[in-house]
Amino acid sequence: MGEGRPLGVGLIGAGKIGRVHARNLAERLSGARLVAVADPEAGAASAIADRLGAGAVCAAPEELLAHEAVEAVVIASPTPTHADLIHAAAASGKHVFCEKPIALDLAVIDAALGAVARAGITLQVGFQRRFDRSFRQARDLVAAGRIGRPRLVRVTSRDPQPGPIQYLRESGGLFMDMTIHDFDVARFLIADEVDEVTALGTVLVDPAIGTEANDVDTAIVTLRYASGALGVIDNCRQATYGYDQRAEVFGSEGAVMVGNEELDRTTLVTADGARNANPKPWFTDRYADAYAAEMQAFVDAVRSGRPAEVGGEDGRAPVAIALAAQRSALEGRPVLVSSVEPLPRQAHAAS
Amino acid sequence: MGEGRPLGVGLIGAGKIGRVHARNLAERLSGARLVAVADPEAGAASAIADRLGAGAVCAAPEELLAHEAVEAVVIASPTPTHADLIHAAAASGKHVFCEKPIALDLAVIDAALGAVARAGITLQVGFQRRFDRSFRQARDLVAAGRIGRPRLVRVTSRDPQPGPIQYLRESGGLFMDMTIHDFDVARFLIADEVDEVTALGTVLVDPAIGTEANDVDTAIVTLRYASGALGVIDNCRQATYGYDQRAEVFGSEGAVMVGNEELDRTTLVTADGARNANPKPWFTDRYADAYAAEMQAFVDAVRSGRPAEVGGEDGRAPVAIALAAQRSALEGRPVLVSSVEPLPRQAHAAS
Amino acid sequence: MGEGRPLGVGLIGAGKIGRVHARNLAERLSGARLVAVADPEAGAASAIADRLGAGAVCAAPEELLAHEAVEAVVIASPTPTHADLIHAAAASGKHVFCEKPIALDLAVIDAALGAVARAGITLQVGFQRRFDRSFRQARDLVAAGRIGRPRLVRVTSRDPQPGPIQYLRESGGLFMDMTIHDFDVARFLIADEVDEVTALGTVLVDPAIGTEANDVDTAIVTLRYASGALGVIDNCRQATYGYDQRAEVFGSEGAVMVGNEELDRTTLVTADGARNANPKPWFTDRYADAYAAEMQAFVDAVRSGRPAEVGGEDGRAPVAIALAAQRSALEGRPVLVSSVEPLPRQAHAAS
Amino acid sequence: MGEGRPLGVGLIGAGKIGRVHARNLAERLSGARLVAVADPEAGAASAIADRLGAGAVCAAPEELLAHEAVEAVVIASPTPTHADLIHAAAASGKHVFCEKPIALDLAVIDAALGAVARAGITLQVGFQRRFDRSFRQARDLVAAGRIGRPRLVRVTSRDPQPGPIQYLRESGGLFMDMTIHDFDVARFLIADEVDEVTALGTVLVDPAIGTEANDVDTAIVTLRYASGALGVIDNCRQATYGYDQRAEVFGSEGAVMVGNEELDRTTLVTADGARNANPKPWFTDRYADAYAAEMQAFVDAVRSGRPAEVGGEDGRAPVAIALAAQRSALEGRPVLVSSVEPLPRQAHAAS
Repeated sequence: MGEGRPLGVGLIGAGKIGRVHARNLAERLSGARLVAVADPEAGAASAIADRLGAGAVCAAPEELLAHEAVEAVVIASPTPTHADLIHAAAASGKHVFCEKPIALDLAVIDAALGAVARAGITLQVGFQRRFDRSFRQARDLVAAGRIGRPRLVRVTSRDPQPGPIQYLRESGGLFMDMTIHDFDVARFLIADEVDEVTALGTVLVDPAIGTEANDVDTAIVTLRYASGALGVIDNCRQATYGYDQRAEVFGSEGAVMVGNEELDRTTLVTADGARNANPKPWFTDRYADAYAAEMQAFVDAVRSGRPAEVGGEDGRAPVAIALAAQRSALEGRPVLVSSVEPLPRQAHAAS
Repeated sequence: MGEGRPLGVGLIGAGKIGRVHARNLAERLSGARLVAVADPEAGAASAIADRLGAGAVCAAPEELLAHEAVEAVVIASPTPTHADLIHAAAASGKHVFCEKPIALDLAVIDAALGAVARAGITLQVGFQRRFDRSFRQARDLVAAGRIGRPRLVRVTSRDPQPGPIQYLRESGGLFMDMTIHDFDVARFLIADEVDEVTALGTVLVDPAIGTEANDVDTAIVTLRYASGALGVIDNCRQATYGYDQRAEVFGSEGAVMVGNEELDRTTLVTADGARNANPKPWFTDRYADAYAAEMQAFVDAVRSGRPAEVGGEDGRAPVAIALAAQRSALEGRPVLVSSVEPLPRQAHAAS
Repeated sequence: MGEGRPLGVGLIGAGKIGRVHARNLAERLSGARLVAVADPEAGAASAIADRLGAGAVCAAPEELLAHEAVEAVVIASPTPTHADLIHAAAASGKHVFCEKPIALDLAVIDAALGAVARAGITLQVGFQRRFDRSFRQARDLVAAGRIGRPRLVRVTSRDPQPGPIQYLRESGGLFMDMTIHDFDVARFLIADEVDEVTALGTVLVDPAIGTEANDVDTAIVTLRYASGALGVIDNCRQATYGYDQRAEVFGSEGAVMVGNEELDRTTLVTADGARNANPKPWFTDRYADAYAAEMQAFVDAVRSGRPAEVGGEDGRAPVAIALAAQRSALEGRPVLVSSVEPLPRQAHAAS
Repeated sequence: MGEGRPLGVGLIGAGKIGRVHARNLAERLSGARLVAVADPEAGAASAIADRLGAGAVCAAPEELLAHEAVEAVVIASPTPTHADLIHAAAASGKHVFCEKPIALDLAVIDAALGAVARAGITLQVGFQRRFDRSFRQARDLVAAGRIGRPRLVRVTSRDPQPGPIQYLRESGGLFMDMTIHDFDVARFLIADEVDEVTALGTVLVDPAIGTEANDVDTAIVTLRYASGALGVIDNCRQATYGYDQRAEVFGSEGAVMVGNEELDRTTLVTADGARNANPKPWFTDRYADAYAAEMQAFVDAVRSGRPAEVGGEDGRAPVAIALAAQRSALEGRPVLVSSVEPLPRQAHAAS
């Protein structure tokens, strides 16, 4: 690929997150062009293509993958389609940016990663928090040894509102849908693997989340890392004050905290106290720059031939931790992450 | 103009701030299209037009104003050209967004505003801080009576680095080039007029600013408002820690503060203390959203026929205050703003 | 007891925390006089008595309890002596302020509380954080319904340095010695009981804490409350940046956070970032006012005949939780607090 | 004076600030004893003496000064008495801690300082902010060169409520009564002298402050330092949110800020925003530790024979600046501090 020629990118899935990626590709990034959009809902695909000047509107992903201008695809379709699309992209020799999770089943993921490896394409998984300035700065400070040896990791992640019951029912559950980002952050911040998980979940936001979606809406998950460090994540599907995204790593020489970004920096001080603005309300605000940065990193990786910063193993590991968390919550006991592995891997992990 | 048809906008001046406006017009705003770019440096204009898909590249502003697709112009050329371009745009019936200041001479401004009024075009002046979320929130809280009757206004405005001496020499001086934004903020925050100014200036950053640019680089300006409230602005051309933009309004029922936006929200805590990130480094970062919002407001005003939020009088008043500040610094005494008015206005103000 | 006559208080135990109480009694409180000090080390008792003008120096607690001017005692001697001294004070009809924990054995505690009840004396237990302005304000906001129904409680508690191995070996272990305060805070903040505990502990600060004191130095403890709310406490025996004492309650309508008190409110901003002071270094600084306030509350309770704010049950419950945490850490599973109860209580709890 | 023997201190003036000093001397300081109290109101003096175990109650300061146990005096009587009492103390060879201001007249101050010098006694003036941890830390950072060469100093000082009109009428006026502390802080923070003052005052809190006390209640004062640095102080007699005490020094390498100390460190976050506590409500809270520290410094200076940290010249300079500010506000122009000097000094300053 010539130094100067922009990468032709096709978008599969014109839903909420697909539109975020499309707009970044069309307007904010250098070195890439959005050249095709595919969505079963033709209207959604056309709307993006028209708005952003993308050339082709495809009814099916296969059509998009066959398009000669498409050199890489962004998979932003529903989770159950991810693995098959990765296989198809690999077969077409197209690079892949895939939204999380790759799949809910580790064997399925392994097969997809195998196809990626055999095809020699670049795969990046959509864990955008790694590209947020604050999380990245925290990671860098830890990596530079500024807090010494990590001892404790804390992640707080609370959504402003739960999605509709229908969405929650198909989401894979809180640990797979929501905590998965925190499992990724937990690995990212200290570059360490999670060995054991203990998950406590409960229904405090909406009884229907339990009765109709068979899920929990509030949870605390503790982690044991390979290094011996401990971690804890707390989640809730609903926070009245906005999207709450904080983290902390505590180590032998200090600690690093990631705080929320407020909506503004205005303080009102009256006899009733000093009032500051709330956190940004939702992920599209909080991580607007991170979404652009992760896509830029993908484009740069493809164009330079360097490996993606968030590769297949980074997409797989949080799924394994989430599976362990699900089992822990169900059985009320700590669960080794290695115990949820498909048999060959599990044998390997135990050796 | 039809409800749905986007406004055709031409950009005059393809320098740093011109590029900010061009990109916002092309990518971030709704209801507008960038249709032409004019700059004496053809390369600069072409670069913008190519990058953003703007149709016409014009060597001269006259050519751009004659372009039928151009319904409104953004004047981002050097200050000495502003007034003539406003006259030309008014003569062509094109709406005008003009960077500050309109001119350094009140009579020149008055003539330009007269032409605008006679032509019935919309004029908005580029005081972008009024569209910053935090300054706007502070203004709204004051306007809603949340701090009672204003008593004191404080504005801190410090640049990261002085521009080159050549720039400073032609800038109109610190009060006209830099403090002018603070004079605007001072008026905006409490919707009150400044009657009297006392300015103290000194050279502490770079002796050449005094000897070669005949200017000061560090200043404190105090204000008396028509309401009796007092104000103070402090400026410096150089702050090692970034672009420092803060304000405070103190009133009978409380106070409202505007703080800096940090580069990230990471805190490192070690035996040496707790370290947070510095403010965003420069105005293009700090006011990125504000530049988009002010241009959106201009487009919306033109399309709806409503008056611009920052009109001619708002463009004129800070120039008058800056002239009074210059005289105050020179003569070492408080100066009435009315005393720098051209004769007819001055007589009016005194009556 | 007459309205105006100050309460005569005797201090048993002239160690570090005893000196804090003595000074508060002598200098900061109203309605109390320090009239006697007892300590096996005569020099320590005399030093306090001389410095503060306390009348009697006693070699043995019995002597102090027999002193007619002593109406109430502060028990600040080593933990193993607490229960016997409560029995002795109850037998003498002297009111008791007892440092935590009352004992490490619930049956022993129950016997002591029985003696207190039969004697009709006032007993207050030394959980001083309940009298810290910030923790109390948080409790009050929760009690007033300002955050709605509590869902999550987070407590961070990290000491600046571990005590000597000899101290740690006799301390009862991290959960009983250090986390016990956090268990108290966890109950206090949301006025709810802890039903189940899961504790993860590890040795990351000093291997000798494991090998010589048979203890952990870093831990995360999760809680299930009777209401269904979840909680988490994180501890470490060593934090390079000072004494870290934070908490948060998250509920259906919002959240309340308790932050650290810094050593000063000075911020240094340079090209390297904005640096604030660290938290106050140790409990005697952080809780100086809380120690005075808890003792004032005790004196006021005795003089007014009202019940103590932190009574016997509040002294007992954190010990039960700590015992459950110890078992949980040992057995690697969640432990019901009711399961560590002596048999009769356990039967009662299970019914 | 023997190494171990405490300094005998007599208190003259048993009003509000006198009681603060008395309690510190009796309870918080080492190396000092409160041995006598004098006040025209015998009840006030007795109340202190009884409460704190001070031996002698004196009707007149002369009696106290004649008391052999009195080695040093704290002058906390009304300002008009200060100078005469300093003369009397000097004549008796007693060291003096004198509340600010020494006098409202520079010649009177000079005579008092002359008497002090001739007697060879120690004199410390009551500018307690110099002993506040935050202001001191800021001063130390500046002195250590951490912000480079100072360019701008900002001081904010707002009282929660004005005193009664009767008090204000006798206070010497806002600049002498309230801003005087800020003039001291302005000198202290950067160890530089103020050469020129421009004061703007107005009446916005209570018209009676203008009509009955002939004073202003809101003011901004700008300063030119000998080094060329600029400064600004803003004051108001009334702030609904508490006692507002902030400062900032900006220099060539950075800035240092002093913020308020809040009442507690609790944050309530709801849909309405994040609410923090207000500043401590009044000077006895904000500067409680500073009052103890300044008196300890006085006692240590006397006992060690080292010069006082806040000597006669530090007591005199803010009075001169306040006099210049009064003249500036009256005449509406910048005033050189040297121009308010008594003639011989003025001549000296001009030379």
